[in-house]
Amino acid sequence: MAFTSSHLRLYFIMGSQDCPDQDPIDVLEQAIAGGITMFQFREKNSDLTLSETVALGRHLREICRQHNIPFIVNDRADLALILDADGVHVGQEDLPAREVRRLIGPDKILGVSAENIAEARQAIENGADYIGVGPMFLTSSKSDARFPIYPEALQAIREQLEEPFPIVGIGGITASNAHKVMAAGADGVAVISAITKAEDPKRAAEALAQAVGSTKM
Amino acid sequence: MAFTSSHLRLYFIMGSQDCPDQDPIDVLEQAIAGGITMFQFREKNSDLTLSETVALGRHLREICRQHNIPFIVNDRADLALILDADGVHVGQEDLPAREVRRLIGPDKILGVSAENIAEARQAIENGADYIGVGPMFLTSSKSDARFPIYPEALQAIREQLEEPFPIVGIGGITASNAHKVMAAGADGVAVISAITKAEDPKRAAEALAQAVGSTKM
Repeated sequence: MAFTSSHLRLYFIMGSQDCPDQDPIDVLEQAIAGGITMFQFREKNSDLTLSETVALGRHLREICRQHNIPFIVNDRADLALILDADGVHVGQEDLPAREVRRLIGPDKILGVSAENIAEARQAIENGADYIGVGPMFLTSSKSDARFPIYPEALQAIREQLEEPFPIVGIGGITASNAHKVMAAGADGVAVISAITKAEDPKRAAEALAQAVGSTKM
Repeated sequence: MAFTSSHLRLYFIMGSQDCPDQDPIDVLEQAIAGGITMFQFREKNSDLTLSETVALGRHLREICRQHNIPFIVNDRADLALILDADGVHVGQEDLPAREVRRLIGPDKILGVSAENIAEARQAIENGADYIGVGPMFLTSSKSDARFPIYPEALQAIREQLEEPFPIVGIGGITASNAHKVMAAGADGVAVISAITKAEDPKRAAEALAQAVGSTKM
């Protein structure tokens, strides 16, 4: 799948641990109906075995394929290859981006988390297609999330990069504060709980899509 | 690397968590000097980041290559591919063996844990090159290890399989009880702490090699 920065506009991240009371398949379908532009499958500290993870991933991957939504797998490149994902996202503590790029080849999408200009430059050098910068605001979705760096940090990275490069803001983003992330120069916002914890995931995605200036595809 | 059942004779498994007070590189070199025939790199609940895991894995992999010892990676097929390992070992809770076989291709070694004839048959059908059966005895190395199934269970699997198939016993095996595992029909024994917790890893490996009727290569 040919990746462009517009895919980052409304990037939805989810694993079974994020929707304990709902069916992840249903949540993803609603999020897509609401206008998400990219999806990341992120099983982290979940109760699923890896066999169950593969089974759920297959289903989510198929839904994304039907709707032409890039399907990215968090952390495990082997799972990404097994699921024929469109790409992999790695954090600074995951497998080194350079190794993952070699493993998945030049055509798959590689996302890398970065929280400062040094990590951003390194990620680009290592073959990233986009960087995820955060946490933008306080968040409860990631148990290991750090203190917010705020949209100002994203803006600083954007301004220090020599060339335009796809950047998505992540962490504590809602329909109310998303405009601050966009104003800081992000190509889009990545959310977990703003959709998974919403009473109506489709409407939540619609509100976010509107906040980032996107319209339902 | 062309795999044969004789590689299983003395199968050493280790990650940094298994030798907190020693250098894993040094322990592996001593184990090789003592006569191990295969090695599995198994970082599990370790303190290493994945970058550190890759760095350590590279070093251990290189030592195995120098000594013509098959280098197997536990669980993560992506790490195995990054390290150009000779193979992958998966448990019943890891990525499905069939998917891992597809991912790593026909030539790499695939090991699968099995504790009964049904799991053994399934593993063989899914493309395993050998099965690991255990725990043979009480063990402290694996925090998630189950109650022992004893060499009798390995013998039952051996007898119920229609064809000869490489089987290694694992779990609580020492130089004192290894002969029981071999007598039950195992092609070899897999050990962690019998070597890593020994005061002299080389001598411990030598004693094990002698117990399984192997000689230093």
